[in-house]
Amino acid sequence: MTGLLDRIEDARAKGGDIANGCIFDAIIAGELPAHIVFEDEIAVAFLDHRPVFHGHTLVAPRAHLETLSDLPDDLVGPFFRSVRAVARAVESGMAADGTFVAVNNKVSQSVPHLHAHVVPRRRKDGLRGFFWPRQKYQDDAHMAEVAGSIRAAF
Amino acid sequence: MTGLLDRIEDARAKGGDIANGCIFDAIIAGELPAHIVFEDEIAVAFLDHRPVFHGHTLVAPRAHLETLSDLPDDLVGPFFRSVRAVARAVESGMAADGTFVAVNNKVSQSVPHLHAHVVPRRRKDGLRGFFWPRQKYQDDAHMAEVAGSIRAAF
Repeated sequence: MTGLLDRIEDARAKGGDIANGCIFDAIIAGELPAHIVFEDEIAVAFLDHRPVFHGHTLVAPRAHLETLSDLPDDLVGPFFRSVRAVARAVESGMAADGTFVAVNNKVSQSVPHLHAHVVPRRRKDGLRGFFWPRQKYQDDAHMAEVAGSIRAAF
Repeated sequence: MTGLLDRIEDARAKGGDIANGCIFDAIIAGELPAHIVFEDEIAVAFLDHRPVFHGHTLVAPRAHLETLSDLPDDLVGPFFRSVRAVARAVESGMAADGTFVAVNNKVSQSVPHLHAHVVPRRRKDGLRGFFWPRQKYQDDAHMAEVAGSIRAAF
C-alpha cells in the first residue's frame, strides 16, 4: 500500500473529504485500500506500508479515538483481545520467534487514531529496539521521588 | 532499585528460592523491594530500575504468565485497563507530552513474565524509537502475499 499519504493529499487537494481527513478512518470505511489481515466489530488490522519488518501490522479500533487514554472501559478488553489475536497470528503466520507490540501516544504517533503496532521479531534480527541507551536514577531517594510523582497522579 | 539482578543471584547462590526464580514474581510477592506506583487485584506496576527515561514503569500481571499470548480472555480487559491507568498517570505525573507503551514477547524480553513498558515521552526527547529504519515491500503482490500468510494464521 504505497502512497497512502499521497492519495489522501490528492483527495484533499481535489476538495474531497476522506473520512474527516483520518487515513485510518478511511481504511476502516473502505475508502482507502489496505491489506487487511483481521477485522471484527471493534477493530481492524492491516499491514503497515512502511514495515519495520515484513508482516508489521497495525491494529486500530473502528471508533476514532486518538490515544490509549481515550479508549473507553468497555472497549479495552475487546480491543486488546484483538491485539493479542493479531500478535499470535503475526508470530505464527510469519514464522517469527516473537513479537513486539507497541502503542505511541501523542509523541511519535504519526496518525492521531489509536493503533497498536505488532512487529514480528526474530532472534538477532538487528533490532536493538528503543530500549537503549538506558538511564540511571541518581540514587534510591531520587527513584522514590519519581515513583511518588506517578503515584500521586492516579 | 539498583542491583535487583545481583540480589536475586545472591539469593540463588545461597540456595534461596526466590519465587521460583522470577524477579517479577518476587517483587509482586514482596520478596524483593521495588518502587511500586500502582497495584490492584490483577496487576502491579513499578519503576524499571534502568529507565529509558525517568518514570519508565513496568506493569505486570500478578499471575505468572510469560507473554501476551498467555494472558487469558478474562484478564485482558482488567490488565490493559491498568496499563491505560498507568499510561495516564505516567504522562501527567511526569508532566510528559505523551507515552510509549510496549510489550516484548519472547525476543528482547529480559524477564519471562508478561510486562508492559510505559515510558514517558517528550517532543524532541531524542528517542527516535525502534521505528527506524523502515523496510519496503517489493510490490503490492508481495504485500498481499504477506497479508495472506498472517490471515491464514488466525
